[in-house]
Amino acid sequence: MKGRFISIEGGEGAGKSTVIKLVREWLHERGYQVDLTREPGGTPMAEEIRQVMLAPRDETVDNLTELLLVFAARRQHVMARVLPKLQQGEWVVSDRFLDSSYVYQGLGRGIDTRTIDMLASLTVGDTLPDLTLLLDVPVDIGMERVRSRGAKDRLDGEALHFHEQVRRGFLQRAEQDPSRISVIDASGTLESVLEQVRVTLEQRLFSGDQ
Amino acid sequence: MKGRFISIEGGEGAGKSTVIKLVREWLHERGYQVDLTREPGGTPMAEEIRQVMLAPRDETVDNLTELLLVFAARRQHVMARVLPKLQQGEWVVSDRFLDSSYVYQGLGRGIDTRTIDMLASLTVGDTLPDLTLLLDVPVDIGMERVRSRGAKDRLDGEALHFHEQVRRGFLQRAEQDPSRISVIDASGTLESVLEQVRVTLEQRLFSGDQ
Repeated sequence: MKGRFISIEGGEGAGKSTVIKLVREWLHERGYQVDLTREPGGTPMAEEIRQVMLAPRDETVDNLTELLLVFAARRQHVMARVLPKLQQGEWVVSDRFLDSSYVYQGLGRGIDTRTIDMLASLTVGDTLPDLTLLLDVPVDIGMERVRSRGAKDRLDGEALHFHEQVRRGFLQRAEQDPSRISVIDASGTLESVLEQVRVTLEQRLFSGDQ
Repeated sequence: MKGRFISIEGGEGAGKSTVIKLVREWLHERGYQVDLTREPGGTPMAEEIRQVMLAPRDETVDNLTELLLVFAARRQHVMARVLPKLQQGEWVVSDRFLDSSYVYQGLGRGIDTRTIDMLASLTVGDTLPDLTLLLDVPVDIGMERVRSRGAKDRLDGEALHFHEQVRRGFLQRAEQDPSRISVIDASGTLESVLEQVRVTLEQRLFSGDQ
């Protein structure tokens, strides 16, 4: 039996890490093998590409350079990890996948959707997630969570406006592909988020018509 | 006055490094500023991408991953070095450029030409070389020169058949675009190669109809 593929998306501070652990636990309880992974990254080579992409540097990084690095890492991730694991019957749960490119590189950096569609078709083909959980949280709550962790990277350093765009971008993706992307209200208590996630997994992946 | 852009192409052991130094000297004598660069690479970030691409690794590197890394490095090279230098009036001389992708990733790795055309159009646009010198040498002579240097990288380790394909691929490129690509017979003595290069530069870049 082939495994299934779940991606978790959302802006900074949406609670992806916590939800990912819950999803793994929930699937383990049902007897599935689960491979947790992330993008950009997920293989040694793809993690090196991530480092090159996120490193602070004096050189101005061109937006298309960044986009091509994201898709190089994604192609390697899909070919060397996601597909082999699915074929072995494991479930793959990825912290970010294709939707993040439409939002961060597309809307965030102004790269047009057709360019991203073309690279997606070239590199990912039909290896799309069976389910994407979009963790949605207002920007002020998300940023407050990030600040309380003390974490910093290149994306964190950018303006509030950027994060508002990111949030709208993810919600647009969900409107365009509601059969794959499920929006989780991640602004409330941990317990309320986890309950929504449990219900969504049950309905989307284990209801009778699947 | 805008500078001009020259690329030097050819298989292993064709003598690119020697020719590049001659071209620089020849342009200096005519009073031009010359920026020598190379691909993949040419900026700190693009050189990091080159390292990721060429590093020996256990992980199987997917052909499309490699192609996307080459074009990520190329985009960065064009935007952060080639175009600014040309706009400042310098001449840019690059050890490899776009033709190498059609040969090494296209013919060598079996990636179709349309995919490379599409990435070329996306990343390079009309920043094509004004002149490309293709140094052509029979594979046995080229490989003997490489062996005598003791140099080794991932491409060097591959079979003779691959190098034959590379040679044919470059010659095909030259047939398809003779107004840009000039074939230099690089099998003879250093003096005969340098004389051909001098004549070509004079005719292609400094003749009256340019």
